[in-house]
Amino acid sequence: MSNAAKRLLSTVTIKPTPSKAHHHSPIPSSSFPKGYALTGVHAGVKKISGVPDLGIILSTSSRPTSAAACFTRNAFKAAPVVVSEQVLAANNGRARAIVLNSGCANAVTGKQGMEDAWAMVKATDALLTNPSVADNNDTLVMSTGVIGQNLPISKILTAINSQTPKTLLNDFDAWERTAKAFMTTDTFPKLRAHTFTINGVEYRMAGIDKGAGMIHPNMGPPRASTGQLHATLLGCIVTDAPVSPGSLQNALTYAVDRSFNSISVDGDMSTNDTIIVLANGAASETAAEIDEATDPEAYEAFKVELTAFAIDLAKLVVRDGEGATKFVTVTVKNAATYEDAHKIASQVSTSNLVKTALYGEDANWGRVLAATGSVSLTRDLDPTTVSVTFIPSDGSAPLPVLVNGEPEKVDETRAKEILVQEDFEVEVDLGALGKEEARYWTCDFSYEYVRINGDYRS
Amino acid sequence: MSNAAKRLLSTVTIKPTPSKAHHHSPIPSSSFPKGYALTGVHAGVKKISGVPDLGIILSTSSRPTSAAACFTRNAFKAAPVVVSEQVLAANNGRARAIVLNSGCANAVTGKQGMEDAWAMVKATDALLTNPSVADNNDTLVMSTGVIGQNLPISKILTAINSQTPKTLLNDFDAWERTAKAFMTTDTFPKLRAHTFTINGVEYRMAGIDKGAGMIHPNMGPPRASTGQLHATLLGCIVTDAPVSPGSLQNALTYAVDRSFNSISVDGDMSTNDTIIVLANGAASETAAEIDEATDPEAYEAFKVELTAFAIDLAKLVVRDGEGATKFVTVTVKNAATYEDAHKIASQVSTSNLVKTALYGEDANWGRVLAATGSVSLTRDLDPTTVSVTFIPSDGSAPLPVLVNGEPEKVDETRAKEILVQEDFEVEVDLGALGKEEARYWTCDFSYEYVRINGDYRS
Repeated sequence: MSNAAKRLLSTVTIKPTPSKAHHHSPIPSSSFPKGYALTGVHAGVKKISGVPDLGIILSTSSRPTSAAACFTRNAFKAAPVVVSEQVLAANNGRARAIVLNSGCANAVTGKQGMEDAWAMVKATDALLTNPSVADNNDTLVMSTGVIGQNLPISKILTAINSQTPKTLLNDFDAWERTAKAFMTTDTFPKLRAHTFTINGVEYRMAGIDKGAGMIHPNMGPPRASTGQLHATLLGCIVTDAPVSPGSLQNALTYAVDRSFNSISVDGDMSTNDTIIVLANGAASETAAEIDEATDPEAYEAFKVELTAFAIDLAKLVVRDGEGATKFVTVTVKNAATYEDAHKIASQVSTSNLVKTALYGEDANWGRVLAATGSVSLTRDLDPTTVSVTFIPSDGSAPLPVLVNGEPEKVDETRAKEILVQEDFEVEVDLGALGKEEARYWTCDFSYEYVRINGDYRS
Repeated sequence: MSNAAKRLLSTVTIKPTPSKAHHHSPIPSSSFPKGYALTGVHAGVKKISGVPDLGIILSTSSRPTSAAACFTRNAFKAAPVVVSEQVLAANNGRARAIVLNSGCANAVTGKQGMEDAWAMVKATDALLTNPSVADNNDTLVMSTGVIGQNLPISKILTAINSQTPKTLLNDFDAWERTAKAFMTTDTFPKLRAHTFTINGVEYRMAGIDKGAGMIHPNMGPPRASTGQLHATLLGCIVTDAPVSPGSLQNALTYAVDRSFNSISVDGDMSTNDTIIVLANGAASETAAEIDEATDPEAYEAFKVELTAFAIDLAKLVVRDGEGATKFVTVTVKNAATYEDAHKIASQVSTSNLVKTALYGEDANWGRVLAATGSVSLTRDLDPTTVSVTFIPSDGSAPLPVLVNGEPEKVDETRAKEILVQEDFEVEVDLGALGKEEARYWTCDFSYEYVRINGDYRS
């Protein structure tokens, strides 16, 4: 059938989006970091009764809690982003609570939006057992959902004010309800926990995030200058390790670049993207604070743990991308700089032609190459040293499709075996430009994406 | 219905892509520039018998013919791009013929690809009535179609060699067959002619282009350093005005930035994008050559004509974008620099969320704003001075949806009246940053696009 003829058809059968439910399962309550109390409840932002739309996470540690965050670089920062930046700056990297809602982004809401975000902060502050002496605000706030509408703030405040030490818990059920309060078009709650050891002390971290659409984050530390381009992604990671505020921010900035800033669902950057990390030291009364200057090795170990954990959380967002049927890792090797490798990986991961080919299960290396070549690099590509390989996730042999700039005669049956899998990797090897490598995670581009976004006012 | 429920549906009914056939109609043969001889024939690159896949345009003027071109900035330049750059450089901006094929892009084809492109040049050279004295090559070459496959070069050469002065003509039929030879997934041949007057002399220009997918060109003059990111777009414009080679290149570079480099179908940049212009002076034996230095006013007038004509041709590509049901003009006003305005217009025009909202006929200013804010500018945006307006193409009243950063209460009935139209404009007014303005042309993002690209090996 000619392409012109195909364009005249009037219905298509959509390949069913595979269920993602198995990516969420119970976690033993003992795996969660000590010294936190949380909940997810239905405040009434979302219309469906009983669905959690408000989450609260409090640190109850007797040690000081450090806080760090990366926020969207979008010029139209939503009110909660602006307020959280101000709280963090005023407190020199200390905060003890997170409050968030889904269903309404509180973005492009003017003065009322700012007042509402501050009201959420102050109501949550009041739940803390030891309010700050200097009347500082101790809460960071996040919102996600529809843009340009005001929050139903009285409903939200009523829900916050009704929380008590009996309703704020640290078991799997509380974590799961909180994770559900993050969800918008997500199909499963995104919750992970991890245990690690530094200097002989065992620590835990737990994380929640959400994504689905408008996902191509480019986040920087607080008050960063506006960066380049690029979704709502919300996430938080909390740990019971003691980490100094400055070191916590540095570790988070590094981790976010290699995790949340290395994923794409649709290439669109949101006004609300926020990742918050809290470190409350509750695991041990005596363990020394982890700090880059005083114990670089401990810091490095923490940074590695945080980065790996952030990558796990970031991958969940891609896995549940709107309409996604594939989970694809794009690896760019042997670039002159990390930034060059990252730019190419981003370009390949956001190419609509690459993403529709992934949906079509087509080993279309020509589109991968066109995307690779469209990026401006610090050192010019040599087309004769570029190779592209499709790598299956089942451990079977990789399939080279382009070797040193020359197309291979591709075994289409073998290509299909790899591309029908839900997970696989596309590797772009630049050859001899350098030794740097970057990894990006993306999904395919399907009819579902068009349907979801063709009539959802976000 | 919840979004989660929508994701489980298994069929969709596609809104039929409107017919674009009315964008092509007969042009009087007297409107075409003098001194050209051309044809479009079936050489056998495409499988369907009789469909034109090879085009030849010769200048038969007795005056020297100037040539200029803008080529893709992709690092993986196809063989015809490399060869055309070399011809143009060796001849100091002179060339008298264009040869092109569709069906095979001759891209990523190594040494054989270069030999084939040169063979097309030399065979076409031989059709010229006065071969160059110094044995220079006088032909520029273009190819479009599948990447990574070699041309059926013997079929192509046979078709070129069989042309005679009797088969190469300058009437509407010859122009139409040539325009058809450019087509890949295009649904109609793209051909325009225009008459203009400079210094009392009447000149003509005619142009052909093609597009459909992998359309987000970023073309520069020959041997430009690789630029930023971004489609196959092929086009040629020929005129019977006399223009000096340097001035022709300068006028084309300016025109391409404001036309072909200001359109997007899918945000993907091709390895083959090429726009060629020829100026053969055949309109008048005596009119002075148009040159920037010797007659700036005449040059300026020519540049304006060329730019307006290039915009008309570029718009046809968007109009026929793969799966497009809408033709949308994105205007960004009051930016500090033209580049800032162009970057925002490009970002809005390539946002998948904006494009799916256009398909869904949803006045989703939030997505327009998120895209606007994601661009890094020379001067930071002030969110409180940004306005977004939907402007209908029928001359009825514009619909402001965001005024100075505050959402308007949108009359959804009125919004629908505008958005159901095939043509409309989205205007982003930055307020007080400056006085610069840029315009971009884009289409919506539909199920059709996914279908066309989910199984077409390009």
